[in-house]
Amino acid sequence: MARGARILEGEHTAQEILRDVRQQVRDLDDEHRLTVTLAFVVVGDNPATLQLIANKKARAEDAGLRTELHTLPADTADGEVITVIDGLNHDPGVHGILIQHHMPRYRDARRLIEAVDPAKDVDGFHTANAGLLATDVPAFVPCDALAGVHLLKEHVDPRPVGWHAVVVGDTHRTGRPSARLLLGERCTVTIAHEDTRDLADICKQADILFAATNRAGMIRAHHVKPGAAVFDLGRSRITVNGELRIVGDVRFDEVREVAGWVTPVPGGLGPVAVAMLMRNVVTACRRQKRLDARGARHAG
Amino acid sequence: MARGARILEGEHTAQEILRDVRQQVRDLDDEHRLTVTLAFVVVGDNPATLQLIANKKARAEDAGLRTELHTLPADTADGEVITVIDGLNHDPGVHGILIQHHMPRYRDARRLIEAVDPAKDVDGFHTANAGLLATDVPAFVPCDALAGVHLLKEHVDPRPVGWHAVVVGDTHRTGRPSARLLLGERCTVTIAHEDTRDLADICKQADILFAATNRAGMIRAHHVKPGAAVFDLGRSRITVNGELRIVGDVRFDEVREVAGWVTPVPGGLGPVAVAMLMRNVVTACRRQKRLDARGARHAG
Repeated sequence: MARGARILEGEHTAQEILRDVRQQVRDLDDEHRLTVTLAFVVVGDNPATLQLIANKKARAEDAGLRTELHTLPADTADGEVITVIDGLNHDPGVHGILIQHHMPRYRDARRLIEAVDPAKDVDGFHTANAGLLATDVPAFVPCDALAGVHLLKEHVDPRPVGWHAVVVGDTHRTGRPSARLLLGERCTVTIAHEDTRDLADICKQADILFAATNRAGMIRAHHVKPGAAVFDLGRSRITVNGELRIVGDVRFDEVREVAGWVTPVPGGLGPVAVAMLMRNVVTACRRQKRLDARGARHAG
Repeated sequence: MARGARILEGEHTAQEILRDVRQQVRDLDDEHRLTVTLAFVVVGDNPATLQLIANKKARAEDAGLRTELHTLPADTADGEVITVIDGLNHDPGVHGILIQHHMPRYRDARRLIEAVDPAKDVDGFHTANAGLLATDVPAFVPCDALAGVHLLKEHVDPRPVGWHAVVVGDTHRTGRPSARLLLGERCTVTIAHEDTRDLADICKQADILFAATNRAGMIRAHHVKPGAAVFDLGRSRITVNGELRIVGDVRFDEVREVAGWVTPVPGGLGPVAVAMLMRNVVTACRRQKRLDARGARHAG
């Protein structure tokens, strides 16, 4: 048996999705005079956040989307931020709204997310969208989860019915929607977390392992069943020799010796997730304008 | 070691909950002139459904609630049913609304459930309530799930952190909310279903087994780890010697020899679930009138 996992780089897949997004953006412009637009609302000036937003903004523009950046000082009151969000909710020229995630500690992130019109919540974080996913009529699904399942189906098994998937991490934004999508694919799904006993034993049962803890390098070789497909959805910022690095949950160099497939960080799920976000924005625009995937207008 | 499971009869627990409900209903009447009211909307005349509704109605009245029964012919158009629901949504004298479940096949049950005001959805089936549960701010949670977790905490472990729970059945109304509540208790949770491979091996890992498939008697002794706590959330109607009987998912006579705890059907979870429903109605009334658990009026 050949040793060493197949490395699932996401860039190629991301480019395929973005090519399709670009075509749809052009069609919406040509046929309906619509300029697909994504608005960012950023509170404060955390450099890491600004870098993240700049990357997404560049990707969006590369995909042909128009972007708007609304930056507010770190000490802006929640009520004022909500006023900005509400303006975007009611602006027919804005189709998707992203709220920056790394809120100062005192700020009630949930309240701001709930202020976004669910029809423009392209991150899929609003409870209305969580409810739709929970009842099998997904509208907007968080992009890391979409990206993981997309890579699974593209590279490992297009119909993963009956496989045992273990999702490590029960977060609203990543672990939970991943579990729900994997159940939708008819996997048996175990959700593990920091209170799980014998985590390695649980993980070792996984045909498909989704790591979504944001705890750097916690998934090691002894967590992985030989030949399993390992998807790293974690992101942590660590400093190595004074240099900031983004690392995942998976100890890549160890796990690649055991797994059948593994996504690297960076370069694995990340680019696919960003492409999925852009696809969500196009979907949002179509739905708001009642256009189906062919560009025809709905009756309803 | 003593053989034989402890049988978790629910009637005593149900009576405790109902005693508290009765007291709250009296207080709301005495202090606020509120008559806590539950409305049933029943389409068609399926005898089993009418029997179920009659039982719930009797329990509600026994708990001091006022009930309203709205029965519509089986051929009523969805739009007309929704008109009735909408009238109840806007009636300040109605605090909870139940839609009968066993819709004729052609009828879009989801559409009717979504027509109920989430604030009056005491069954917890509306996507808005599923979303709140998915994001850890539960409002109304389906009563079978509430009952299972209540009996678990009352009789087995008040803090089941880190136990491995296996939920068999991924239904909107029972399996999914059970999994979410068990995760809220910090159990490790596996969700299995009809596409699960090696179901017995998966179930045998369970410290806590929730059976929610509605497949009569499918959980047998070889599915159960010795000493496990087994909760039977399933209901099937079968005919034995010409007599209609309600049975659960668990082959009780086998499983009681292996398990540490097991709920019988009938008499286990059922009465607790009905009591939880009544508690949801009182909670709905309080929230609609902005009253906290002490009866004081909220500022907001």
